[in-house]
Amino acid sequence: MPRYALQVEYHGAPFVGWQRQTDQPSVQGAIEAALARLEPGPHTIAAAGRTDAGVHALAQVAHCDMARDWSPFRLSEALNYHLKPAPVAITACARVADDWHARFSATGRRYLFRVSTRRAPLTIEAGRVWHVRRDLDLDAMRAGAAHLVGHHDFTTFRSTICQAASPVKTLDRLEIEEIATPTGREVHFRLAARSFLHNQVRSFIGTLERVGAGAWHPDQVRAALAARDRAACGPVAPPHGLYLAGVVYPEDPFAQD
Amino acid sequence: MPRYALQVEYHGAPFVGWQRQTDQPSVQGAIEAALARLEPGPHTIAAAGRTDAGVHALAQVAHCDMARDWSPFRLSEALNYHLKPAPVAITACARVADDWHARFSATGRRYLFRVSTRRAPLTIEAGRVWHVRRDLDLDAMRAGAAHLVGHHDFTTFRSTICQAASPVKTLDRLEIEEIATPTGREVHFRLAARSFLHNQVRSFIGTLERVGAGAWHPDQVRAALAARDRAACGPVAPPHGLYLAGVVYPEDPFAQD
Repeated sequence: MPRYALQVEYHGAPFVGWQRQTDQPSVQGAIEAALARLEPGPHTIAAAGRTDAGVHALAQVAHCDMARDWSPFRLSEALNYHLKPAPVAITACARVADDWHARFSATGRRYLFRVSTRRAPLTIEAGRVWHVRRDLDLDAMRAGAAHLVGHHDFTTFRSTICQAASPVKTLDRLEIEEIATPTGREVHFRLAARSFLHNQVRSFIGTLERVGAGAWHPDQVRAALAARDRAACGPVAPPHGLYLAGVVYPEDPFAQD
Repeated sequence: MPRYALQVEYHGAPFVGWQRQTDQPSVQGAIEAALARLEPGPHTIAAAGRTDAGVHALAQVAHCDMARDWSPFRLSEALNYHLKPAPVAITACARVADDWHARFSATGRRYLFRVSTRRAPLTIEAGRVWHVRRDLDLDAMRAGAAHLVGHHDFTTFRSTICQAASPVKTLDRLEIEEIATPTGREVHFRLAARSFLHNQVRSFIGTLERVGAGAWHPDQVRAALAARDRAACGPVAPPHGLYLAGVVYPEDPFAQD
């Protein structure tokens, strides 16, 4: 059975998350239902990042096995046709080796978190950015973030229902920049790691927002990390500012020749 | 009665346009209803651009007269409170002279039109960009656009229900650039003029898209303009790619001291 890698974009709002759940709309379920229109199922697909309810994806990666030998272009077109009107789109598709796995072959994940600092309510950007309505001190947040980068026990920053075997991970990058957009100032957080714990990014951002607002000293981030205690975490940022921005593989399956 | 200039941002989808209509949701109606929560009405506000159904605004400008002497900050905060949950926000507010007029004092309008050329359906950007699903030839569109810039009779490019006294206008700028966004390539059209005719921008963009797709030669734009005949226009582009991006006054009422 030929295997295909799928690059997937979605708006998270209507979904309970990536993972299929009985009687609730999920991204996985939407794609599997579209696959079932192409070939008899059941279809079970795997993804690099199991995003939570309301989290968006710019470039999630999944894989599927097909009975027929589809051209990648035809497969993505057919899936997009059957996915409508759900806000899920296959933005790239490629044939991969039979042992290639969207999750287990991945060597890195990248996330973007968008925060709007403007005063006025959001209109055009509503549902796509976390609206904190206050200026944030970038230098303070960067000082706080510096404590998080590297190899650490991130117990403080993972959900109590996280199923990862170990809370020890390496955060490769946590960059913070302020940008001017047509709808006002935003702070963008860009994170990269081999893998993330459940709620890790939203726990980081919610904590760093407290630092940016002046409620926490940057050193409190170090103390919270050292506590290895979920109760030491700041508030968890809401899902609608979070985007799975990309997945890294030793060889990019979607690279154009 | 003190007069206030309001900078207004909105998502056009839920509205029949700027202008108040009986029993239909309009942006003007939403703001006037919010004003009525602050001071007894009736309130009648005027705006620089009377945008059509579905057209967005990044920085529409309107003005209102109040009985009380409001601080601009308090007025914008109170209006935003009462505007919720409509996707309309007052993003700036300033006291202006009693004879200042949002529409008649304006000396320029700027519009942005966004086009997505990617193949896959839109998800995160749905409703915010015109999705043409094909590459567009920028050089050809620029050659076509060059015929439109300047002082012309734009009868071809205005709606048959346009109420402007004259079809002769001066188009100061029509710039076209392709940009890479997190959700794929977009073509952005930026237009500036003292004022625009009804449906003029969407008539321009729909026609230039035909040029970019190769269906029209750039010189056909010149012929269409010269025809001074609405029937010579290309298709009218849909409203959801269009943004009123700004209004120009001899002195910016919202300039920070």
